[in-house]
Amino acid sequence: MRDLSRDTTFLSVNTATLKPLTLRQAIETLARNGVRAIAPWRDRLAECGVAEAALLLADHGMTVTGLCRGGMFDEAAAIGAQCLVLVVGGLAAGSRDIADARRIVRDGIAALLPHARATGVKLAIEPLHPMYAADRACINTLAQANNLCDALGDGVGIAVDVYHVWWDPALEAGIARAGAIDGRILAFHICDWLVPTRDLLLDRGMMGDGIIDIPRIRSWVEAAGYRGHCEVEIFSAEDWWKRDPDEVVRTCVERYQACC
Amino acid sequence: MRDLSRDTTFLSVNTATLKPLTLRQAIETLARNGVRAIAPWRDRLAECGVAEAALLLADHGMTVTGLCRGGMFDEAAAIGAQCLVLVVGGLAAGSRDIADARRIVRDGIAALLPHARATGVKLAIEPLHPMYAADRACINTLAQANNLCDALGDGVGIAVDVYHVWWDPALEAGIARAGAIDGRILAFHICDWLVPTRDLLLDRGMMGDGIIDIPRIRSWVEAAGYRGHCEVEIFSAEDWWKRDPDEVVRTCVERYQACC
Repeated sequence: MRDLSRDTTFLSVNTATLKPLTLRQAIETLARNGVRAIAPWRDRLAECGVAEAALLLADHGMTVTGLCRGGMFDEAAAIGAQCLVLVVGGLAAGSRDIADARRIVRDGIAALLPHARATGVKLAIEPLHPMYAADRACINTLAQANNLCDALGDGVGIAVDVYHVWWDPALEAGIARAGAIDGRILAFHICDWLVPTRDLLLDRGMMGDGIIDIPRIRSWVEAAGYRGHCEVEIFSAEDWWKRDPDEVVRTCVERYQACC
Repeated sequence: MRDLSRDTTFLSVNTATLKPLTLRQAIETLARNGVRAIAPWRDRLAECGVAEAALLLADHGMTVTGLCRGGMFDEAAAIGAQCLVLVVGGLAAGSRDIADARRIVRDGIAALLPHARATGVKLAIEPLHPMYAADRACINTLAQANNLCDALGDGVGIAVDVYHVWWDPALEAGIARAGAIDGRILAFHICDWLVPTRDLLLDRGMMGDGIIDIPRIRSWVEAAGYRGHCEVEIFSAEDWWKRDPDEVVRTCVERYQACC
């Protein structure tokens, strides 16, 4: 397993972690704290403008570990995103058929894939925690994501987010299975699960403040061949989003080096 | 699949659904609405007294579909509970080792089993939703519960609660696997998953108000051989717990007959 404690080479911060900031502010805050990789969300990218964003990113030497979230291949290609993260959606309005929702997702990604392949943008399926199965994403385990990748073929892989998968008794096996296919693990997202968790969506914790054994999961991901960044994605309405962004990024760096 | 629409023979109501009521009040409310099966929680049982409760239950001809939650075999035997539902616990304080927590649960149930077998009380392992893995129960899927039952042998089975397992892509297979062992499915709990869900613990929905395909899951449970009650367990701080208990029970009956 790689030693992360000496520098920030493989640290990336998702702009969701710096919710109050514009993309320019986020890039500048990261840069002045020594972080050289970022994963923007589309709202912040749109607000900044794709061309302007591409310049800003280049000026600050930023690696783009991913673009959240799916649909816009040309945007992803323009900013050199390493993958386009798919939050695949849940049940259709009025539906109680989760199996059907999963078929719709499979067919939808299959339909997108030719264009994604043509633009060279990898699609990253992110299994979300089962508490989001109804309304956000009906792909909820590594096993499902692996099955989907097997069915869809080249151009699609998996984003492993510890927050969503830490509880899965089949996690180690699922990561190993993903690792057996070269390049299938496209991203590794980190944050922590707080006890208690007070909100289903906006109460994620900073690494080290919760109960996820991040080093163990990272050891599995790296044993599976992953050598990319660790991307910090923290939705935290009542805590981190209210703090000084420089403090947030400094803490990301400290915890990345000490707890991951 | 059984036709539930004509009577309440297989309807049971968990006292958590009638949170404000004493056990006596709950029994009387159920009886006057034609419900003849109940699953009490231990706090309400203790408050009433086990001997008094046993008399009350007998006077009203109540079947006890389960006792929540684990530990007290003699209480369960005294009120004729069909099983003792185990909420197995999560991580120990300060621990991040979910695999170790799962080993502790296995060893703990193994240690309890001789006494449970001696008193004739079946232990029902209830897989809880993965959002409770850290702090309430580290058994989170049918596959895990089946593995545990296989390892532990006679006297232990599974409580299938639609709220906890509806999202699982391996649910149908897990139920079929449980059904292959005679008597392994000890209980079937019903309620609904609301969209949005506003609280991790206390925002369960009445059957029909959410997105769980309860009839489909019941068809799998019955295809697996289950012929017991459907037990309504609704934690609902802001809605059902604030309503008139007779309205709650009437609605349980209506929805049991129409939506399950």
